[in-house]
Amino acid sequence: MKKFLDDNFLLESDTAEYLYHEHAAKMPIIDYHCHLPPDEIADDKSYENLTQIWLYGDHYKWRAMRANGVDEKYITGDASDFDKFEKWAETVPFTMRNPLYHWTHMELKKPFGIEKILNKNTSSEIYREASDKLQDKSFSSRGLLNQFNVKVVCTTDDPADELLHHKALAKSKFEVKVLPTFRPDKAMAVEHPVNYNAYLDKLAKVSDVEISSFNDLINALQKRHDYFHSMGCRLSDHGLEQIYAEDFYDHEIKGIFLKVRSGHTLSLEEQRKFKSAMLVYGGIMDHEKGWTQQFHLGALRNNNSRMIKNLGPDTGFDSIGDFDQARALSRFLDSLDRENQLAKTILYNLNPSDNYLIATMIGNFNDGSVPGKVQFGSGWWFLDQKEGMTWQLNALSNLGLLSRFVGMLTDSRSFLSFPRHDYFRRILCNLIAQDVEKGELPWEKEWLGEMVENISYNNAKNFFEF
Amino acid sequence: MKKFLDDNFLLESDTAEYLYHEHAAKMPIIDYHCHLPPDEIADDKSYENLTQIWLYGDHYKWRAMRANGVDEKYITGDASDFDKFEKWAETVPFTMRNPLYHWTHMELKKPFGIEKILNKNTSSEIYREASDKLQDKSFSSRGLLNQFNVKVVCTTDDPADELLHHKALAKSKFEVKVLPTFRPDKAMAVEHPVNYNAYLDKLAKVSDVEISSFNDLINALQKRHDYFHSMGCRLSDHGLEQIYAEDFYDHEIKGIFLKVRSGHTLSLEEQRKFKSAMLVYGGIMDHEKGWTQQFHLGALRNNNSRMIKNLGPDTGFDSIGDFDQARALSRFLDSLDRENQLAKTILYNLNPSDNYLIATMIGNFNDGSVPGKVQFGSGWWFLDQKEGMTWQLNALSNLGLLSRFVGMLTDSRSFLSFPRHDYFRRILCNLIAQDVEKGELPWEKEWLGEMVENISYNNAKNFFEF
Amino acid sequence: MKKFLDDNFLLESDTAEYLYHEHAAKMPIIDYHCHLPPDEIADDKSYENLTQIWLYGDHYKWRAMRANGVDEKYITGDASDFDKFEKWAETVPFTMRNPLYHWTHMELKKPFGIEKILNKNTSSEIYREASDKLQDKSFSSRGLLNQFNVKVVCTTDDPADELLHHKALAKSKFEVKVLPTFRPDKAMAVEHPVNYNAYLDKLAKVSDVEISSFNDLINALQKRHDYFHSMGCRLSDHGLEQIYAEDFYDHEIKGIFLKVRSGHTLSLEEQRKFKSAMLVYGGIMDHEKGWTQQFHLGALRNNNSRMIKNLGPDTGFDSIGDFDQARALSRFLDSLDRENQLAKTILYNLNPSDNYLIATMIGNFNDGSVPGKVQFGSGWWFLDQKEGMTWQLNALSNLGLLSRFVGMLTDSRSFLSFPRHDYFRRILCNLIAQDVEKGELPWEKEWLGEMVENISYNNAKNFFEF
Repeated sequence: MKKFLDDNFLLESDTAEYLYHEHAAKMPIIDYHCHLPPDEIADDKSYENLTQIWLYGDHYKWRAMRANGVDEKYITGDASDFDKFEKWAETVPFTMRNPLYHWTHMELKKPFGIEKILNKNTSSEIYREASDKLQDKSFSSRGLLNQFNVKVVCTTDDPADELLHHKALAKSKFEVKVLPTFRPDKAMAVEHPVNYNAYLDKLAKVSDVEISSFNDLINALQKRHDYFHSMGCRLSDHGLEQIYAEDFYDHEIKGIFLKVRSGHTLSLEEQRKFKSAMLVYGGIMDHEKGWTQQFHLGALRNNNSRMIKNLGPDTGFDSIGDFDQARALSRFLDSLDRENQLAKTILYNLNPSDNYLIATMIGNFNDGSVPGKVQFGSGWWFLDQKEGMTWQLNALSNLGLLSRFVGMLTDSRSFLSFPRHDYFRRILCNLIAQDVEKGELPWEKEWLGEMVENISYNNAKNFFEF
Repeated sequence: MKKFLDDNFLLESDTAEYLYHEHAAKMPIIDYHCHLPPDEIADDKSYENLTQIWLYGDHYKWRAMRANGVDEKYITGDASDFDKFEKWAETVPFTMRNPLYHWTHMELKKPFGIEKILNKNTSSEIYREASDKLQDKSFSSRGLLNQFNVKVVCTTDDPADELLHHKALAKSKFEVKVLPTFRPDKAMAVEHPVNYNAYLDKLAKVSDVEISSFNDLINALQKRHDYFHSMGCRLSDHGLEQIYAEDFYDHEIKGIFLKVRSGHTLSLEEQRKFKSAMLVYGGIMDHEKGWTQQFHLGALRNNNSRMIKNLGPDTGFDSIGDFDQARALSRFLDSLDRENQLAKTILYNLNPSDNYLIATMIGNFNDGSVPGKVQFGSGWWFLDQKEGMTWQLNALSNLGLLSRFVGMLTDSRSFLSFPRHDYFRRILCNLIAQDVEKGELPWEKEWLGEMVENISYNNAKNFFEF
Repeated sequence: MKKFLDDNFLLESDTAEYLYHEHAAKMPIIDYHCHLPPDEIADDKSYENLTQIWLYGDHYKWRAMRANGVDEKYITGDASDFDKFEKWAETVPFTMRNPLYHWTHMELKKPFGIEKILNKNTSSEIYREASDKLQDKSFSSRGLLNQFNVKVVCTTDDPADELLHHKALAKSKFEVKVLPTFRPDKAMAVEHPVNYNAYLDKLAKVSDVEISSFNDLINALQKRHDYFHSMGCRLSDHGLEQIYAEDFYDHEIKGIFLKVRSGHTLSLEEQRKFKSAMLVYGGIMDHEKGWTQQFHLGALRNNNSRMIKNLGPDTGFDSIGDFDQARALSRFLDSLDRENQLAKTILYNLNPSDNYLIATMIGNFNDGSVPGKVQFGSGWWFLDQKEGMTWQLNALSNLGLLSRFVGMLTDSRSFLSFPRHDYFRRILCNLIAQDVEKGELPWEKEWLGEMVENISYNNAKNFFEF
C-alpha cells in the first residue's frame, strides 16, 4: 500500500518516478489559459485567510458542498469566513474519489506545507496555520506565482478591456509575464440587442472607432486586436456550445448588423450567421498575427435559473452538453484553411464522448506548417481530473501526436491551482512509464525524458512564441 | 491466478477484502427499484424447477441464446422445461466475459450452494439439484427474500393498480416491506387514443373520478398518488427515450386532453406538450409528498417488429439509443426547481456516452437541502455489469459525491437476482481499495468502511425514508 | 520492465502467453475485409524499396508526418523515395504511444526480421536492409501473403468491375483465395447526376443491361451480384455516414430514378429515399445468396477541401463524425427482418461513443438462425489500435457473445499490414487471460483455448462459408 500523497503520488513504477523527478518536476509553468484576476497580480494582493483565497469564487467546491447538503449561507452567503471553512472541511471526507479530494490536499501540501487530512477535526488547526502563512509575502499573488515557478500567465480578457493592469505589470519588475487573451464573446452576443448595443458603445469608446456598420465593428476589433498584440497577447478564446459555421454573404452580415445595431431582435438564423461571420473574421485576424485561437466547446451553462438569478453566472450551475460538434467544426476550420488563413488552433471539448471526434478532427488540418498546428486541448473543467486527463492523453496518443502536445493549463480563478500542472505531469509520466513497463515502449531514457520535458513546457514555449 | 468466484471474487487486494467482508457484506438490501411480481410475494410462490424461476421471463438469457444460434422453440417456445435448460446450459460457455457468466454462477452459488460450472456436461445434475432445493420453503419467493437479507422491495406499478397484493402483504406477518412505485407511463401514452381512453376509463373507475377534462385526470392521478403514499410508496418512475420539456400553457393542455379524450389523434407536437405537462404535474405531486422521482432515459425499444408481434414487449429486442438528453433534462428540472418544487430525483441513463453529462447535470440542481438530492442512478440494464457499473461509479466519483450515492438496485423480474447487490458491493469495495493501494486515498479504515456501509445501505435508508 | 516488442508483446501473464502461443499464433488468417489491389496480387508485384510498399498510399503515416510539421513535398510530393523515408524515420519517435509506433516496429520485425528502433540514426540502415529483402521472391505480394499464412483475402470492388484480376487469380496456382466484395457505393451516389449517369452507362455495359428504369438498375445490379457470387464473393460492403432508412414506395423510387437518369438534380429527401431503397434491395440480394452485408458507419470524410483538391480522397483528411445512428439502423434492419430477408450482417462504427449502442443493436436481430448472425465489427480505422480494439472487445463481451465474434480484418491497402491480426490476437488473449488471472473466468485451458482459436479463425471460416 502506497502512502497517500507522498512524493511519488500517482507514480506507480520506478520508470514513472524517474520521468517525473528527473524531467517533469523541474520544468517551469506556462499557464497559457486561466482566469486569474490581473488586478490582484498588479496589486500583489495578499489574502486575509484561507477561505478568501480558497473558497471565495471556487464553484467546484461550492457544487460539492451543495451536493453534500450544506446550506447556501455557508457557501456564498453571509456566514463568517471561518464558518464557511468549517463547512468545507466537513464536506472534504465526502469528496472521496473526487478530484477535489486530491486538489485540496495537494494545495495544502504545496504551498502551505500542511500534510494533515482536512476534516472537521483538523479544520481549525489547518485554517489557522494556512491563514498565518498567507500573511507572508511569499503567499501574495506574486509570491505564489513565484513559488510555483510560473513563467507566463495568460489571463482572459474582453476586447474592450483597457488592460491597465497588464500595462502596469509590463512596466513593473515582476518577472512573470502576465499577458492578456482576446476573448470576444460579448462582441458576438447579439441575442440581447440592448446589452449588445451598450457593449458596442463601450467598444467604440475604447477603440476610438464610431461603430455604425459591420465594417466599423471589424475595424474596432482589429484595433483592439492590434493593441492586445502590442501587450503580448498571442491567444484568442471562444466559449461556445458549438461552432457556428453557417454559409453567409458579407452583405447579409452587414444587414444583420444594422438590424441589431438599431435595436431590433434578430432571428435565430440571423444570429447564427452573424456569429459564423464573426468567428471567421476573428480567425483571420489571429492567423495574420500568428496567434493561436482557442475554442472551448460543449458546455451547457446556466441550468439553474433560480440560482443564476440569486448568484449570477459561473457559480456552479453549468454542466456538460451533448451538442453535435463534427460537421460545423469541419466546415469552420475548412473555411479558413481553404484560404490559407487557418491560425494555430486549440480545440477543447467538455463532453468526453467527443474525445475521439476531436482528436481526429485536428488531424484534418495539420498541414506540416507547424508541428502540432491544430491541438486537442487538455482535459477541461469537469475533465480536469485523473480519469478525464487520462482519456484525453490516450485519445491524443492513439489518434495524433502526444509528443507535440502543448500540455496543461489551469483554467483557474485561483492562485492556488498550480498544483494541477503537477497533477498532470505525474499522470503523464505514469502513463508513459506504464507503456515502458509493459514493453509497449522501448526504455530509451533520454528520448522519453525529452518528450516529458517538451509536453510539460518546451512545446508550449515554442508553439505560442510569447 | 485467483480461483474463479471464490469468497474474494472481484476483490483484488487485502484492502478490498477488508472493506467488503467487514463492512459491505453484512449490510441488508433495500431494492428500491425492481419489477418483482407482487402477487408471487403475496402468494409466497414456490417454483417447480430451475427453468421456471430462472429462464421464464429472463430476456437477458434469451438474447444470449438467440445470439448463440438457439431456436426460439427452446427460448420462449413449447420445448420442455428441461430441454430449455439444456440449451441454456450449452450457451453458458459461450457467454464468457458476459455478465451472464458471472450472474449465472453467482446465483447457483447463492442461494443454491452449487459451485459447479454450468455447461452441457453438468446441466442435468445442476438442474436436478437446484430444482430439488426449490421445493424447500426457504426457496419460495419470501424464503428467497429472507435468504438475501432484503429489507425493502419497491415494485413497479401502474397508478390504476389496486395494490391488493401490497395490501395483503402489509397486513401479513412478512417482515420485508413490499412497497409500490408509482409509474404513470400509461397515463401519458396519448399516442394511441383508443388504448389511452380505455386506460382512462380504468383509471376513472379505480379512482372514482369521472375523467372528462385534464383537471379530472390530474385529480384522479392525485387520488391514486395519495393512495400509493398511504400504501408506503415513496418513489415514482418514468421510462422515456428522452425527457419531454416543451413550453406549454395550461389551456393548451386542456384542449389537447379534450381532443384525445374524444378519440382524436394528436399531432407529435401536441403529444410532446401533453407529456411535458404530465411530467411537471407528476413532479409537483412527488415533491409535495417528499417522494423521489426516477427517470430511466435512453432505451430504444421494440426494434424487432417480427418478434414483438410474436412475443410482445420486454422479450429481448430493446437496445441503447443515442437521444439528445442535456437540454430537455435541464429545462425540465429547472422548471420544477424554479418554483421550489423539485423532488428528490434519480436519473438513470442507458447510453454510457452520457454518463458524464448526467453526472454533471445532477450537480446543477443540488441545492443543499438534502445530501445527494439529485442522484445519478446505478448502472442500469445493459450497464448493470462490471464495466458499466465501474464507469458509473467513476463518473459519479469524479463529478459528484460518490459518498452520497443511494447505490444499487436489481431492476429485476427474478427472485434470484439479489446477488447483483453483492456484485455491486464487491466492485465498489475494490475500486475504493484500488485508490487506497495506489496512495490516492489515505487508509483510514473507519472512514472508508463507513462510506461503504452508507453506499450499500444507509444512504438509501436515509434518502427514501420508507 | 518488459522488453519492447519481444515474443510476449502485449501478453501480461503466463495465461496470456499460453493462450497466444499455443492457440492464437498458429491459426491462419482470413482477411475478410481489406483494400488490397487485386492487380498487384495477380501480377505478383515486387516493390523497389521500403518507401514504395510502406509509405506510398499510407494515409495514417501521412497524417502523422503532417502533424509533426513535415512538408507535403516529403509526404505525397516529389521528394525522392529515400528522402521521404528519412522524414518518416524522423517522425517515428514522435509517434510514441500512437499505434503507428507499434505497427512500424511490428512490420519491421515481421516480415523483415529487423528489430532496430526506427529513427533518424537508423533510417539509412533500415531502408537498405528492408529494400534489399523486398527483392526476394518471398517479399512479392504473393510471397508476403504466404509468409503471413493468409488463407483468404476479400478485396473491395465496384459492381461494375470486371474482376479480371480475380478471374486470373482463380485460374492460377496461387493458393490464397482472393475474392471480391460487392461495394455498390457508386450505384447509390445520386447526388451528382452527371457522374451518376456516367457510372450507370458503365454498369449497363458491363452487365449488358440497358438502364433506363429503376427496374433495369436492379436487374443490372442483380446480374453483377450473380457474377460476383460466381467469383466467390460472399460479402457486400457500404460506407455511410449513417444508414438511410426512409419510408418509400416503389413508385416513388421509380420516379426518382427517372429524374436523376434524365440528368436532373434530386432533392435531399429524394436522395435519402433512393438510397434507402437501394440498401433494402441490396440487402435482399445478399440474404438470398447467403452473403454477409457490411456497413461502415460514421466517418466524416473529405474535411480539408484544399488538400482534397490537390490530392484527392483517402489521403488523410477524414475523421470521426457524431451522427445519430440508432433509429435508422433499427428501422433498416427491421425492414429486412420483418420480411425474413435479413442477411448476416456486420456493423462497424467509427465513433467509439456508439460502441454500446451497436453492441446492443446487434442483439435485436439475432434470431437463433445463425450463431452470431448480426456482428459488431472489429475496431475500424481510427479504432484499429489497442485502446479501440479493447473497447470493442469489451463492449461485445459485456453486451453480446464474444465467443461468436468473426474477429479481425486489416481494412488495409498494404501487404505489410497483416501483423495487425497478430496485434489483435495478442490483445484478445491478454484480455481473456486477465479475467482468468483475476478469478473472473475459470481456468479451463481447453475451453478458452478453443474460444481463442474460434475468434482468430474458425468463426470467420464457418460464418462466411467462402
